[in-house]
Amino acid sequence: MPYAILVSDPLASTLVLLAMLWLAAKLGGEAAVRLKLPAVAGQILVGVLLVSLPSLFSGLPKLPGFLKSPEFLKFMDFAHNPQANVLAYIGIVLLMFMVGLESSVPQMMKVGWASLRVAVVGVIGPMALGLMGAYFLLPKGTPYAVDLFIGACLCATSIGISASVLRERNASDSQEGRVVIGAAVIDDVLGLLVLVAVSGLAEASSGGGPLPWGSLGRTLGLAFLFLALALTVGRWLSPRIFGWASRFRGEEILLPFALAFAFVLAYMGSLVGLATIVGAYAAGLILEHHHVETLQVKERRSLEEMVQPVVAIFAPLFFVLTGASIDPSVLLHPNTLLMAGVLTVVGIIGKYISGYVAGGGTSVPIIGWGMVPRGEVGLIFVSVGRTININGEPLLSPEVQAGVLGAILLTTILGPIGLSWVLGKPKGQNKQV
Amino acid sequence: MPYAILVSDPLASTLVLLAMLWLAAKLGGEAAVRLKLPAVAGQILVGVLLVSLPSLFSGLPKLPGFLKSPEFLKFMDFAHNPQANVLAYIGIVLLMFMVGLESSVPQMMKVGWASLRVAVVGVIGPMALGLMGAYFLLPKGTPYAVDLFIGACLCATSIGISASVLRERNASDSQEGRVVIGAAVIDDVLGLLVLVAVSGLAEASSGGGPLPWGSLGRTLGLAFLFLALALTVGRWLSPRIFGWASRFRGEEILLPFALAFAFVLAYMGSLVGLATIVGAYAAGLILEHHHVETLQVKERRSLEEMVQPVVAIFAPLFFVLTGASIDPSVLLHPNTLLMAGVLTVVGIIGKYISGYVAGGGTSVPIIGWGMVPRGEVGLIFVSVGRTININGEPLLSPEVQAGVLGAILLTTILGPIGLSWVLGKPKGQNKQV
Repeated sequence: MPYAILVSDPLASTLVLLAMLWLAAKLGGEAAVRLKLPAVAGQILVGVLLVSLPSLFSGLPKLPGFLKSPEFLKFMDFAHNPQANVLAYIGIVLLMFMVGLESSVPQMMKVGWASLRVAVVGVIGPMALGLMGAYFLLPKGTPYAVDLFIGACLCATSIGISASVLRERNASDSQEGRVVIGAAVIDDVLGLLVLVAVSGLAEASSGGGPLPWGSLGRTLGLAFLFLALALTVGRWLSPRIFGWASRFRGEEILLPFALAFAFVLAYMGSLVGLATIVGAYAAGLILEHHHVETLQVKERRSLEEMVQPVVAIFAPLFFVLTGASIDPSVLLHPNTLLMAGVLTVVGIIGKYISGYVAGGGTSVPIIGWGMVPRGEVGLIFVSVGRTININGEPLLSPEVQAGVLGAILLTTILGPIGLSWVLGKPKGQNKQV
Repeated sequence: MPYAILVSDPLASTLVLLAMLWLAAKLGGEAAVRLKLPAVAGQILVGVLLVSLPSLFSGLPKLPGFLKSPEFLKFMDFAHNPQANVLAYIGIVLLMFMVGLESSVPQMMKVGWASLRVAVVGVIGPMALGLMGAYFLLPKGTPYAVDLFIGACLCATSIGISASVLRERNASDSQEGRVVIGAAVIDDVLGLLVLVAVSGLAEASSGGGPLPWGSLGRTLGLAFLFLALALTVGRWLSPRIFGWASRFRGEEILLPFALAFAFVLAYMGSLVGLATIVGAYAAGLILEHHHVETLQVKERRSLEEMVQPVVAIFAPLFFVLTGASIDPSVLLHPNTLLMAGVLTVVGIIGKYISGYVAGGGTSVPIIGWGMVPRGEVGLIFVSVGRTININGEPLLSPEVQAGVLGAILLTTILGPIGLSWVLGKPKGQNKQV
């Protein structure tokens, strides 16, 4: 076994796998950025490409032995590598914690009715249109839960993408910018509640019976109970926990305590059936700057500055692995393209109309396009949908998955393009250039 | 299975496990810091304590069912949890990368003969005395390799501990401080070469035959070849790689590239039989501040500032897991205590004498005590020794492991205490208070 080293020391081969995934993620992200697209789209596409390399190689007439070896094929099947998966999972949990850290409970309260109206219309619009689209696209007899889940996948706005585009174009403190960011915050919570409701619904309707309102109510009740307890007891506990931690004399106290706080909430959320990212996001919302002020002064760095490098290295693994879980041959099927196209149009229209309800003289197209990017939250919906079975079949078939992922990819790409366009004359280059 | 949640969702239970390990590590570290000991000693001890909790509980007359459940016992057997292990492994690899980043190849060249003399005596002294001590302590007929390995475990000085004690006492820019840090840098490379030599030797002498000079020469040759190539080709490549990366327009480029660089070198080192930490350390030595200057300016943060949070959360896992791998009942055995005591005395004397060869009017006790802490490098030696088999038996029996770990623990604790003492009047409190 000349290539045994790739698999014989699982830890050394994990290191070289991570190096490969980082380089691939950054190259894919770079290609996207050069094309004025968000980096996350490039990371997903590079995952699709990487995982299909072995089958592309197998078509070559003269193949070096290495590229045919079982060690290489196992190495390239990284979407099923448990080490890579746990790191990607920590990446997405911490990304949602950081998104939560970027806003606060009072900020959510203050953004007011405009953001709430935009968020509600921005959830109902794509869900209703997506449900209708899915109903017409999918064969008769498909369980309601599948249509509903497809609609749900289209309803969450990516806080990260909207905020970063607005920041790139110096528009994050405009009135429209504030409404979009506020709505994206509310939208995210609404979206996560829809996720809980719809996945509970899908699991409960496995027998093909009528809509299980009792189960839906219980799921929503538990989710609200968890969030209510997190936002009350958690907010009461957070300053006390970090106040106690600030009396520690050791070094590097803040980050381990903050991550432990996020992970315990994520775990407790999972006990009531919520996805761990919901708890991590709630932990971020609860945790206020002033709770950790003493520790931040002592350690001469803000919590965000410490969480960000951890997210920067692990979250791209999540996006590459997400891409690697798409079967590229399915993506090329005409039916998938049709579905992706229809869902993209429906997803953009459903979000765009939310711009009309903001009021206060704000620009409809800026708010409308600002709500379009789906990004990581839509991907999380799809990955949750992949784990749910209905009548012994996965809720989302590979074709439907590919179609929804295609629509998420397209809205993620078209959102920032549309937003840049309606924000007017481009100022030459991106900030990070 | 009422407690199934602890094991049913491996990823959610990994989150709560990590939270528990972080809190335990910080509490153990805090207790140590309050006792004026290095935090790492507390982290190791808390690992010993945590892993022995279930057997302590089993002695209680009235035990809640939860504490007897197989789910709880499996959860507490975290020393064998693959997820926790991969994170701990990444922690120690990145710690060694960061230690490498803290010094540079020219710095190693400049520290001069004083540091080199101290380093060489500081390696030969404890090895020779440790070998002798082990020869008298262990039963007749024990392979030479075991004695040699015990000596090797005592020969590496912890750069981190020495440097942090000197910094705490504002003595890192004294002449003695510079000699100790310089010697600790050289010492680390020498120690790692000794590790390679001794472990190669141990593996080769499995047959119980004479010392395998050929194998030793080949191992050393490969190690030198790798280090020589890393320090020449690697140093030529590093500015070019990061120069290329600095032309990327995407965000968060530096950290993934730097870690990929470290992990590729770690992997390449492992191909010639070196421990992955050697390659990661070499990557840190090679990577100079000015190679990454453009990226640091662009991302408004230094590479150290980005690596440090990742090390801060994962390295403590390594120390807790190291402690958790010590069988505490073995540690209580009189023979183990005798061995730990003898090796501690031998380890302190062997390092202390290196203070006499520094010359230039430097203080013998400051340099002598400065070289005493063993810390993480000694632990790595033990964990490597655990993976080597000789005549079908592990090179280090559990008793010998516990004795050596005891000695490392004691030198790690006594080193900073001795150094503080000879540095004169304590200035009240530690810097981080």
